[in-house]
Amino acid sequence: MEQALKPADRLLHALADNRIAIEAVTPEIDGGRFPAKAAVGEVVVVEADIFSDGHDLIDAALLTRRKGDKAWSETPMRLYENDRWRAAFVPVENTTYEYTVIAWRDLFRSWRSDVAKKKNAGQDVASELKEGLHILKKALSESDRLDPERRARLQRVTEDIARLADPAQQFSVLMGEDLLGLMTAGGPRSNLSYYLRLLDLFVDRKRAAFSSWYELMPRSQSGDPARHGTFDDVIAQLPYVRDLGFDVLYFPPIHPIGKTNRKGRNNSLTARPDDPGSPYAIGSEEGGHKAIHPELGTFEDFHRLVKAAAEHGLEIALDFAIQCSPDHPWIKEHPEWFDWRPDGTIRFAENPPKKYEDIVNVHFYRDAIPGLWHELRDTVLFWVEHGVKIFRVDNPHTKPLPFWEWMIAEVRRRHPDTIFLAEAFTRPKMMKRLAKVGFTQSYSYFTWRNNKVELTEYLTELTTEECRHYMRPNFFTNTPDINPFYLQNSGRAGFQVRLFLAATLATNYGIYSGYELCEAAAMPGKEEYLDSEKYEIRAWDWDRPGHIKDDVRRLNAWRRAHPALQQFTNLSFYNAYNDNILYYGKYTDDLSSFLLFAVNLDPLNAQGAHFEVPLWEFGLSDDAPIMAEDLVLDRRFTWQGKMQHVWLNPSERTYAAWRLISPQERLT
Amino acid sequence: MEQALKPADRLLHALADNRIAIEAVTPEIDGGRFPAKAAVGEVVVVEADIFSDGHDLIDAALLTRRKGDKAWSETPMRLYENDRWRAAFVPVENTTYEYTVIAWRDLFRSWRSDVAKKKNAGQDVASELKEGLHILKKALSESDRLDPERRARLQRVTEDIARLADPAQQFSVLMGEDLLGLMTAGGPRSNLSYYLRLLDLFVDRKRAAFSSWYELMPRSQSGDPARHGTFDDVIAQLPYVRDLGFDVLYFPPIHPIGKTNRKGRNNSLTARPDDPGSPYAIGSEEGGHKAIHPELGTFEDFHRLVKAAAEHGLEIALDFAIQCSPDHPWIKEHPEWFDWRPDGTIRFAENPPKKYEDIVNVHFYRDAIPGLWHELRDTVLFWVEHGVKIFRVDNPHTKPLPFWEWMIAEVRRRHPDTIFLAEAFTRPKMMKRLAKVGFTQSYSYFTWRNNKVELTEYLTELTTEECRHYMRPNFFTNTPDINPFYLQNSGRAGFQVRLFLAATLATNYGIYSGYELCEAAAMPGKEEYLDSEKYEIRAWDWDRPGHIKDDVRRLNAWRRAHPALQQFTNLSFYNAYNDNILYYGKYTDDLSSFLLFAVNLDPLNAQGAHFEVPLWEFGLSDDAPIMAEDLVLDRRFTWQGKMQHVWLNPSERTYAAWRLISPQERLT
Repeated sequence: MEQALKPADRLLHALADNRIAIEAVTPEIDGGRFPAKAAVGEVVVVEADIFSDGHDLIDAALLTRRKGDKAWSETPMRLYENDRWRAAFVPVENTTYEYTVIAWRDLFRSWRSDVAKKKNAGQDVASELKEGLHILKKALSESDRLDPERRARLQRVTEDIARLADPAQQFSVLMGEDLLGLMTAGGPRSNLSYYLRLLDLFVDRKRAAFSSWYELMPRSQSGDPARHGTFDDVIAQLPYVRDLGFDVLYFPPIHPIGKTNRKGRNNSLTARPDDPGSPYAIGSEEGGHKAIHPELGTFEDFHRLVKAAAEHGLEIALDFAIQCSPDHPWIKEHPEWFDWRPDGTIRFAENPPKKYEDIVNVHFYRDAIPGLWHELRDTVLFWVEHGVKIFRVDNPHTKPLPFWEWMIAEVRRRHPDTIFLAEAFTRPKMMKRLAKVGFTQSYSYFTWRNNKVELTEYLTELTTEECRHYMRPNFFTNTPDINPFYLQNSGRAGFQVRLFLAATLATNYGIYSGYELCEAAAMPGKEEYLDSEKYEIRAWDWDRPGHIKDDVRRLNAWRRAHPALQQFTNLSFYNAYNDNILYYGKYTDDLSSFLLFAVNLDPLNAQGAHFEVPLWEFGLSDDAPIMAEDLVLDRRFTWQGKMQHVWLNPSERTYAAWRLISPQERLT
Repeated sequence: MEQALKPADRLLHALADNRIAIEAVTPEIDGGRFPAKAAVGEVVVVEADIFSDGHDLIDAALLTRRKGDKAWSETPMRLYENDRWRAAFVPVENTTYEYTVIAWRDLFRSWRSDVAKKKNAGQDVASELKEGLHILKKALSESDRLDPERRARLQRVTEDIARLADPAQQFSVLMGEDLLGLMTAGGPRSNLSYYLRLLDLFVDRKRAAFSSWYELMPRSQSGDPARHGTFDDVIAQLPYVRDLGFDVLYFPPIHPIGKTNRKGRNNSLTARPDDPGSPYAIGSEEGGHKAIHPELGTFEDFHRLVKAAAEHGLEIALDFAIQCSPDHPWIKEHPEWFDWRPDGTIRFAENPPKKYEDIVNVHFYRDAIPGLWHELRDTVLFWVEHGVKIFRVDNPHTKPLPFWEWMIAEVRRRHPDTIFLAEAFTRPKMMKRLAKVGFTQSYSYFTWRNNKVELTEYLTELTTEECRHYMRPNFFTNTPDINPFYLQNSGRAGFQVRLFLAATLATNYGIYSGYELCEAAAMPGKEEYLDSEKYEIRAWDWDRPGHIKDDVRRLNAWRRAHPALQQFTNLSFYNAYNDNILYYGKYTDDLSSFLLFAVNLDPLNAQGAHFEVPLWEFGLSDDAPIMAEDLVLDRRFTWQGKMQHVWLNPSERTYAAWRLISPQERLT
């Protein structure tokens, strides 16, 4: 019988070693299949359900290390409710970390707790004192977690107790706080148990989690619609963008544009000879994804632009759009990367019955693997070598998920500071999966969430549900593809409202050039721009009357100045008793940065609301006074009591923002 | 460079193979760490989020097999909402199954959908027809999923199409339903993708999921408090238990009882010479866990009892209580299984400052491993060999979780029909973990959930949250340890209420002997019985006035007669507009068994309520008539419209139950 049980006994020992139950660890994405995300300097909170049989006291710790290291760093976990434990740590390096959880039965604290109860009940504890001394000796003989100084102290205490004749004196030393401290640091860890998985945490650089994007078409920067803009024209525009307060400057594709089936103005099927074509029809005889459209300039010009941008505090982001024009060199060089029809012609992009004859799509499988995958990765690496570390990826949901997971891992292995923004507007699970497989930031549904219920539900999902651990939404107010209906009909106030929402609700946000001028001219009945820059060169009056550049400057300044705006999940919606007024707060854990925001979502009518100042967050009573600062008017005042009123008239101001000043700060 | 990338290319291929995203599979317990549970004949629903890049149509299947088999059974999955797919299968064997999910891009259906759109838009599809034919040929050359008859048919259709000259005729055949059927069965599965985990499903026998327990003390069955009851006395009592309608008969420990520090009546510290002691003080010089208390009978008597019980449709359940009396033979034979104090005496059970000096606990680690673990497993196997397959386990939360996981797996490996009921009343996560590590059924908080909000919240948790996949609560109305305060003060009506709740809300429920007699005498201020059978021999008048045996018989008869009462998660709470009246329904998927229950939770006062008959579940309008059957009064009537009224007077009846008769059934 014994013989037959040997394999089963291996199970016995494997199970017995992990006596403490450790489960429901967060973050843990799909059972550890995907890493969670954080940024350098961000506080990462890890939680777990931890419990054991019986009544003995347990303790637990979070283990973290850079992936590849041998040694773990240990952070004590604390029980906070109902068998749930928590620890926080701050990663300091832009790399992959791993973490797990350990727990053990704390012999000394269990003994200490029991013996105290017995003593209080008047029971004789002579035998218990001997057991206590035994645990001290065990710590001395077994523990390697005590430094020499502490070990010497523990040795001394142990010898002292053994020498003491009086049980009352023994008890007093054994129960002392000093000894408890030593034993917490170095006491025996009975039944030391490990969580069953090592979990990955990808730690990005800070800009992954906090960035303000400005998108422009380089060819529209000459100031003359008859002259194709150049990188030098963009350099001339850098002070403008920097003055608005942005830190990422993003361009749609800058590659040669195909001529076959080129689209004309307003997406017409036939182009006039002087029409520049869509920059998304990538590739011509002048080159493909590794080439620059000649009219924009040379690589030398591009390098100068990257350098000048950096001097203005701006980082360049490029578009990574995998589709090709029918003139792309790959088609001849690698016909196996494309789909061909039975008649030998190439298959154009289509979504039947719609056809897109200026575009062909690569095929990622069959003979395109691994050649195409390598080429696309190398294309990204090529631009990284030319100084670009941020990529906005076009329509990633129409390319295979495994490709993204592989490609992003490949690039990050070499350049962990690379940032990928997923431009996917599709179904929610695909949006989230793209974030799981590696995208650093994600476009979102924000563009179509306009009323109070929609915004509240969506932001609550993003900031409280599991996706908060791996998805960082980037709230774009508009894009070359999206001229939202809301903005088409809202006037200037609507632009202020949507800017305010994007810049205060999200840590990553962006506008597409023209937004600050309240450009709203649309193709009738569509969410598309009239005379879109996607198909023609435009020139803009950057001081056009009615612009909202002051608002843009102000909001970007707040974002830089207030730590509360640099965290995403610290959002609380508060009560304002009017469905047109959205009212919310963001604050840092220590309350030193505490902001309140109110915005009138109705761009056409004045709206007022009573609202609750969250005095309770400071532990204040409902009728207490609190000092606040109006961030727009830049002046301090005192609110008396939690119920206050705000009046937001679109013709005067559409939003209000206040900083609450804690009683502690006021005193200093 | 290529050379350096080789390991990375392995990642590429490993990822590329699984193009379709398959995630959020349910059931999946702790990332597959623990099995889900089902019972033979139960419908198991498996769901997953499944989606892919691009616009091609996908399809998916659930794979199931008995663990250890090579071949999978395949069940088609169906999309039901928002990228969520579902399949159901019915396991037929009491063993461990495993399951996973596959998905693929369906080339033929994608082609068919696209070509239909193009044709509708008036586009030329000549080239598409050639591609369609190509997919058919691919199916013939690649697929091994077609039986010979279907393959021959596909071959014929393919040849026919190739011969047809007229594109319109080709189109018609290619788009035909017949061909679609063949291709769904045998068409190419492009990018066939596997979910990353194989998940376990433990399939119990039916009684694991549906059982009615009756607990009694064998020694109290003689009818004379001066005479120790025997197994033969229990045999004489079997018709009584069977007549009440139960199918499990459970005994507290039947082993020799220790004499050292034996407890007297009403848990007093000193026993009189004739006091029988607590059966939970297991072990004397007459033997331990593998022995029978001599006054109960011999093994021969026990075998006769097991056989007689089976003849009465009753299965015997024994208690598995690991603690020992100080006289247990193990203490001398295996001192290494126990804790010893510095003075050389054995450590009694204690929960400081409380001491339990009639009990010593084993120690599961140190030198007790693996000897004690083996002995405990072999003890269970010993009783299995003596005909017992159901064990109620005493206080499992005070023994190591790994021990239970190992021991239950060991027993089930040999006897998968063994059932373990966890008698743990402790914190919620421990209760759930015990179910995860293998316990078949679990005691619950039902005993202390009395009002409408408590019952609704608790049952909603049990029937809708993740624990529904692995935890089967057993609702005991009372136990030798628990004489609930509610019953102490409720009179006969309260006993009816709690019986009704237990028997209709849970598929597993039980009562402890005396409940049917409305026994409520309590130790003052405690939830304990006065003159508890745990410490003395009692004799009962089984026809004591005021008994509720009619209710017990009725409820057990309903449970056997109505399939809706044999499922646990099919519970819906409906509106009854009185907080004292709990009103709920249970029905089978096909509506053929549809029961409604109303119960007055207030045992002291008559209560009435308007309530909603859920006509909508039958697709009926709110004013439609429906035929119903009053299960108590055994008569049919018609309700007109959804709003009805019920009046429940504790002195007449505390509950009502109706069966709704669907319009379909009425017609047949």
